[in-house]
Amino acid sequence: MRKIGAVVFPGFELLDMYGPLEMFGMIEDKLELRMVAETSDPVECGMGPKTVVDDQFSDGVQYDILLVPGGPGTRREAENKAFHEWLRDQSDGAELVTSVCTGSAILAAAGLLDGRRATTNKQAFAWASSFGPKVDWQKQARWVEDGKFFTASGVSAGMDMSLAVIARFFGTEMAGQASVWAEYDWHRDRTWDPFAKIHGLV
Amino acid sequence: MRKIGAVVFPGFELLDMYGPLEMFGMIEDKLELRMVAETSDPVECGMGPKTVVDDQFSDGVQYDILLVPGGPGTRREAENKAFHEWLRDQSDGAELVTSVCTGSAILAAAGLLDGRRATTNKQAFAWASSFGPKVDWQKQARWVEDGKFFTASGVSAGMDMSLAVIARFFGTEMAGQASVWAEYDWHRDRTWDPFAKIHGLV
Repeated sequence: MRKIGAVVFPGFELLDMYGPLEMFGMIEDKLELRMVAETSDPVECGMGPKTVVDDQFSDGVQYDILLVPGGPGTRREAENKAFHEWLRDQSDGAELVTSVCTGSAILAAAGLLDGRRATTNKQAFAWASSFGPKVDWQKQARWVEDGKFFTASGVSAGMDMSLAVIARFFGTEMAGQASVWAEYDWHRDRTWDPFAKIHGLV
Repeated sequence: MRKIGAVVFPGFELLDMYGPLEMFGMIEDKLELRMVAETSDPVECGMGPKTVVDDQFSDGVQYDILLVPGGPGTRREAENKAFHEWLRDQSDGAELVTSVCTGSAILAAAGLLDGRRATTNKQAFAWASSFGPKVDWQKQARWVEDGKFFTASGVSAGMDMSLAVIARFFGTEMAGQASVWAEYDWHRDRTWDPFAKIHGLV
């Protein structure tokens, strides 16, 4: 049973978080979802709905898979040194560290992506990539895998990335089954990214 | 400003709810998201995460758009007469009543879909459609629009349905813009439904 640490902060993006959790949650006998935050208060996303927190950073739980979403709140979290330190500690012990959208700006600001390939939201590409001058940012990618780091492009890309995580751990057949359960049109090709062109990156 | 009543109950399906809310939440100056439930306690979805409730049924708020998700909890809610009565009252005053996945079983059980075309999750089709013998159930449809009722197929189909709602109220261009912001591969064709065939319905 792998424990997923789904990190929430004020102003996180709803679908960045719950798209992947829908996919991970289907593998219920093998993956446990835990909502984790800096403090124990409910956390308000960028659009209003609030999520209850299961664990706080100081509880010292080690997660097997970390999920860091983006959203308007990343503007503040990209400067949150305590969060970055916690992320570095967690990453040491985690099997996989994943991000969606501008969540990769937080990983980059924590220094975790230095020397690695990564991607981020295509509309916020210039802003997000500014936090990682030593990162090999990929302009056209639905998601990028580099060692234990899986970084997805904007919002919906998290669902494709999470299915790739399921495929790595449990096989392509299980990931395909999850996409069918969710009636989701899974983009299995990491290079599928029409949004890079729409935003003038390629 | 239209008020969205996003109805949660124990065992609701995460993406049924948060996929559409991501899309609706982007139109933030025109749509307000409210989480509503039978009681004011946080509501646990089928996969663990808990959502804070903004309004309870007895608050008497009238919503402009209702969103009813599916999930394992529909097994109980399809028999919840108090919920059905609240839904009938709300539907009278609402501009639009939407459901995702087996959420349409609840609408059908409340009698709201009698004489109308509707669809539901393709894997749970037989179960869900049994609650509406007078409903004209569509076996192959990403979503169905009939008057003020928009019913989506399973889980991910809610995102396509919610973009169709945005298109109806604010135009196709705004809906297209929302799908680009979310980097979402919008299926604009209501008849796109490979899952009907996978589950042997056609």
